[in-house]
Amino acid sequence: MRASEANLKACLAELKSFLGERCSTGQSMRELHARDEGWHPPGLPDAVCYPREAAEVARIVEICRRHTVPIIAFGTGSGMEGQINALAGGVSVDLAQLDRIIEINAADMDCWVEAGVRRMTLNTHLRDTGLFFPVDPGADASLGGMAATRASGPNAVRYGTMRENVLALEAVLGTGEIIRTGGRARKSSAGYDLTRLLIGSEGTLGIITKLCLRLQPVPEALRTARIQADDVQSLLDYSIALMQAGLGIAKLELMDEVAVCAVNLHAKLGLAEQPTLLVEFSGSAAAIDADIAFALSLAEDFNLPKPVWAATPEDRSRLWKARHEVAHAEPLLRPGARIFVTDVCVPVSRIADCIRATRADLASVDLIASIVGHIGDGNFHVSLLINPDDENEVKLAEAAHDRLVERALAMDGTCTGEHGIGQGKKAHLRREMGASVDIMQAIKTQFDPALILNPGKIF
Amino acid sequence: MRASEANLKACLAELKSFLGERCSTGQSMRELHARDEGWHPPGLPDAVCYPREAAEVARIVEICRRHTVPIIAFGTGSGMEGQINALAGGVSVDLAQLDRIIEINAADMDCWVEAGVRRMTLNTHLRDTGLFFPVDPGADASLGGMAATRASGPNAVRYGTMRENVLALEAVLGTGEIIRTGGRARKSSAGYDLTRLLIGSEGTLGIITKLCLRLQPVPEALRTARIQADDVQSLLDYSIALMQAGLGIAKLELMDEVAVCAVNLHAKLGLAEQPTLLVEFSGSAAAIDADIAFALSLAEDFNLPKPVWAATPEDRSRLWKARHEVAHAEPLLRPGARIFVTDVCVPVSRIADCIRATRADLASVDLIASIVGHIGDGNFHVSLLINPDDENEVKLAEAAHDRLVERALAMDGTCTGEHGIGQGKKAHLRREMGASVDIMQAIKTQFDPALILNPGKIF
Repeated sequence: MRASEANLKACLAELKSFLGERCSTGQSMRELHARDEGWHPPGLPDAVCYPREAAEVARIVEICRRHTVPIIAFGTGSGMEGQINALAGGVSVDLAQLDRIIEINAADMDCWVEAGVRRMTLNTHLRDTGLFFPVDPGADASLGGMAATRASGPNAVRYGTMRENVLALEAVLGTGEIIRTGGRARKSSAGYDLTRLLIGSEGTLGIITKLCLRLQPVPEALRTARIQADDVQSLLDYSIALMQAGLGIAKLELMDEVAVCAVNLHAKLGLAEQPTLLVEFSGSAAAIDADIAFALSLAEDFNLPKPVWAATPEDRSRLWKARHEVAHAEPLLRPGARIFVTDVCVPVSRIADCIRATRADLASVDLIASIVGHIGDGNFHVSLLINPDDENEVKLAEAAHDRLVERALAMDGTCTGEHGIGQGKKAHLRREMGASVDIMQAIKTQFDPALILNPGKIF
Repeated sequence: MRASEANLKACLAELKSFLGERCSTGQSMRELHARDEGWHPPGLPDAVCYPREAAEVARIVEICRRHTVPIIAFGTGSGMEGQINALAGGVSVDLAQLDRIIEINAADMDCWVEAGVRRMTLNTHLRDTGLFFPVDPGADASLGGMAATRASGPNAVRYGTMRENVLALEAVLGTGEIIRTGGRARKSSAGYDLTRLLIGSEGTLGIITKLCLRLQPVPEALRTARIQADDVQSLLDYSIALMQAGLGIAKLELMDEVAVCAVNLHAKLGLAEQPTLLVEFSGSAAAIDADIAFALSLAEDFNLPKPVWAATPEDRSRLWKARHEVAHAEPLLRPGARIFVTDVCVPVSRIADCIRATRADLASVDLIASIVGHIGDGNFHVSLLINPDDENEVKLAEAAHDRLVERALAMDGTCTGEHGIGQGKKAHLRREMGASVDIMQAIKTQFDPALILNPGKIF
């Protein structure tokens, strides 16, 4: 799959003459594009290109296709399954300079942006409109990368994932062709849903260059509480009951005691080191009051301590910032280690069982391990702190990962709720989807006949 | 594309020996499967098969593929764009006997059903659970057919279309292979989104045999009002303002004066024959009261008469039943005529402009024409009453249709919001999607290499 020396040389020469300094073969630049935030082995691209518009992306693809050189679309590198690692070398196409916010249609609550725009940049831009873009994977990722990996995060319980929040895309296929998959209409029955097909395709079908996004009104009010208890089972049962009551839940997150310990080290929060539930309600002030009253009385029913409400917006932000930074905090528990992080998703009614069994399993593994979860969606993450150079540790982590996926699938779940397949879950995808993987591969050959788009990922 | 005499004969012999009386070549049975409720010319299938499970569907596909005989999946025949008409003959596969409700998971608010289950049957079955399936295209369609055509209807403004309400599918591809596209997890990043690819593929990629559906809690309260005024522009401007206020709108529908006249004839409602807005709020009783107060004061701002609230649940049902039966009512305005019905969808902020221009255009066409719309989604329908045997009338209607699509596309809309492409909009799909249609066709060849699944539709 790696390009021949001669092809690569000719390809890079063409790219350099086309893009000048926007095509770099410098070692440090290449290393910045060699790995994401996951635990997978890095893969060094041979060059990094910075196109400024879709036509330039198309030209890059056309050049690489002619020389059969791999292309890896790069957003910000904040993924977890090694999606942007250049396993077979080739050209990393960094979309950071496709950074225009093209139009905001406040009346229709939608916008067109280029793929390199980051979600926080968009939300800052939207500040005076009363609207925001709700999908929030934690990192300040690019919107194109978020679409490519079908990102979600804590807000998905209320607003859905990228799947529900993208109206249309522009993308460059592996043939170099630029397509648009739809327009701004809220619904359409016009042909196959290429938008959803590209969302989650991890750069293997095309390179997303523009997105039309749905925006949401900023809620009138937000209230966040934490509930801490040693009894994780009660916290989970309480969560399921909350979900089933149909309240205005904006976020519903669990951190286990290990994650809380890491977060304390990182953000100096001084939380009791117990399993912790974070719950946020959003809506009108009146609706929130009713929801809170219900949540309080339900906590009593489950013999849980009284929820502690964040007193100020700053308190609230601090809690969520800490939650978002769990992945950065955890290595503090074992300096020098790397996080082996994975995620699964099960039907909400099964999440207590799945987490209980997973905690029992992890207790038997000789590694520091933690669980955090988007409980409201049935989605949780397991992190194991490993020394990636220690074969035995990698093997222990991989075996625990295997058992986790098996457990989730046995509960009618999926091998990944939001991190994607990338390099790490290819075997699991097959286990979950069976023959459907063959038809996915067949689709891939039509979008990318030369098989140059992000080789070695998903399949 | 039509099978040769010899192939057809051999194919039907095999099917008869496989299915016995569940494979019929009787003329009346074939005629029942020759056309949907739209205006397109019928297409008589050569046989109608009634499989009872996915494995039988797979066997039928395998037999037809071997003899290169077209297969048309048939739900209830309530479509509008001729999707089930057997344009090249072949075998109509009626899924009515795949009618099992397999499991209801009330705690997770989801269910698995077979493709032939009708939406009203499911909702009756759910009556005691406090849950319902919200997508409602009007007709009591089969859920498989609704997925295949990406159906929506008045509830889409609140709950989305089939795209948002199907978690996973089982389908038989054109190769005879049975695939499953996912499980019950609320979200997943596992590979390409084959679920959404099959939804809206109109039987050209596979035959849907099972669906996992998302269910919704029955709202605590519903309140419906009608507002009537000669000034359609004010009604539309009011609608847009209502939408933008972010209330708990469950439905927001417009009928023009011609549609109201038809509905009066059909359902004896005695409504004033004026443009009419139907608006329904759902939610908690308290939230609805607040929404209603806002809606009332907004109506004053737009100089509209006071909304008239349905006093009883029966009043409410009568109004919605009338709205749903517009398509059956309209032919009463010209006995013997057939409805030439089409739909487009534009961004909500453009719908007033689009409907105003369309009304002006229709006024110049010498046919009875009406507009009804799902205003909250920017989606509306135009119906023209034609004598399908009068070439001139067909030409007039087609020309008006062309101008309508052109108008919608110029406003960043789509050539169909919910009826699909079928036979009637193939040229428009190309106009809207350009080169994307080529990649759709390329996908088709992978799902259906023998090109036997519903030939002549979409492309």
